[in-house]
Amino acid sequence: MTGKDMGADIAPIGNSPVVILVRPQLADNIGSVARAMANGGLFHLRLVAPRDGWPQDRAWRMASGADRILDAVTVHETIAEAVADLHHVAATCPRPRHIIKPILTARGAASELRSITGRGLRCGILFGPERAGLENDDMAEADMLVRYPLNPAFMSLNLSQAVMVMAYEWWMAVEESSPRTLMTNETRVATKGELENFLGHLTRELDDCGFLRNLPKRPGMVRNIRHLFQRGEVTEQELRTLHGVITELARGRNGRVVG
Amino acid sequence: MTGKDMGADIAPIGNSPVVILVRPQLADNIGSVARAMANGGLFHLRLVAPRDGWPQDRAWRMASGADRILDAVTVHETIAEAVADLHHVAATCPRPRHIIKPILTARGAASELRSITGRGLRCGILFGPERAGLENDDMAEADMLVRYPLNPAFMSLNLSQAVMVMAYEWWMAVEESSPRTLMTNETRVATKGELENFLGHLTRELDDCGFLRNLPKRPGMVRNIRHLFQRGEVTEQELRTLHGVITELARGRNGRVVG
Repeated sequence: MTGKDMGADIAPIGNSPVVILVRPQLADNIGSVARAMANGGLFHLRLVAPRDGWPQDRAWRMASGADRILDAVTVHETIAEAVADLHHVAATCPRPRHIIKPILTARGAASELRSITGRGLRCGILFGPERAGLENDDMAEADMLVRYPLNPAFMSLNLSQAVMVMAYEWWMAVEESSPRTLMTNETRVATKGELENFLGHLTRELDDCGFLRNLPKRPGMVRNIRHLFQRGEVTEQELRTLHGVITELARGRNGRVVG
Repeated sequence: MTGKDMGADIAPIGNSPVVILVRPQLADNIGSVARAMANGGLFHLRLVAPRDGWPQDRAWRMASGADRILDAVTVHETIAEAVADLHHVAATCPRPRHIIKPILTARGAASELRSITGRGLRCGILFGPERAGLENDDMAEADMLVRYPLNPAFMSLNLSQAVMVMAYEWWMAVEESSPRTLMTNETRVATKGELENFLGHLTRELDDCGFLRNLPKRPGMVRNIRHLFQRGEVTEQELRTLHGVITELARGRNGRVVG
């Protein structure tokens, strides 16, 4: 549609959401994603387990000058690792999957993300692999789901197109109202890494005590617990309290005196 | 982002805007455009002077099942021919070009197009070639310009991404208010073909009378006249009147008695 601005400054605007491609398959798409991100003012790209490895020359060729985004890409083995330093994570999800999480439109999510970043918190948006989209376990890492209102009779949305719509809405979303503020007083909102650390602690103790002994049901139970703690913001102080609760409960179960 | 719905019914919804690709270069992009159109509920695609001819297998390969849109593509030599049966034409335009025409955002244009189609009129949206975008003469064929609010520091927007944003906004735009109605009484809004026919008549007469004799300035003058008549809706009856006016003026100039 337009000429190229190869030399233009597309410098990161401080705190924009991180785009996280989960198991992306085609380097071409990764390049197109970077270009779409630059169009909409998103500058941080992370890859989780890219199928063909990274870096890939083809990505740069498709990026039309959005090289700085590709140059700064980080690669992660798991979603948990990719979101560890973030406070909020959204997951794009073309079809409802009976998950108890808020579902927003792209426009609603963009407004929400503006509000979150406006409070100085870091957020990310997960996009699934080209063919199959995100799996249930992937979505369990998210606080909210994003579903685009588009033609239900033709849902096949190209990966970079999906990013384009989100980037466009991010650019359109003005920071309208004063951001909602969670009063955290002496503490602060926990990062995903801190939450993950707690969930690991909890799961180990639940394994030890036999709560998760039904192996076929274990993945679903772990996921449900995860969903529960993802539902709202948790502060770092609350997590320390929860760690203490789990430790104490486990200690009691082991017959030791709670002191 | 999602699986394919190869067998899904993406049947044309009656009166959706026609996407018109002007001098498109890459068949891949034409296929991606068809896919994006299907995502957003646009079903009519026309090509003006595609660089590599038509049909091209690669387009079908990129369309992810939006075959019916490609199967129904029509090819035209000129924009005028491609828009002849339409009543309103919008042109996407990444940069302002000092043209006296309404400029809308993608969202504003979608709302306008909904309103126009809601009145039973046919409209189209012009997209320029990948590298250079639409030229001034191309935009002279349009009633309004569409400019996306996107990162001004990185304007390089892929053709199918440009169509995606417009298709997405088209899908999002609900027919909110009752459509504005031009009271046409016994007549109806003229098509672009009828307008073109009148402009041809007018230009021929202006050539004959020497009004356009300054050859270097001629293209700009013709374009300005075109812009003037594109600015609002003209009815078929008004055009007949204008034809008569031109004919009569020319006859008087030729020294014949006006009768």
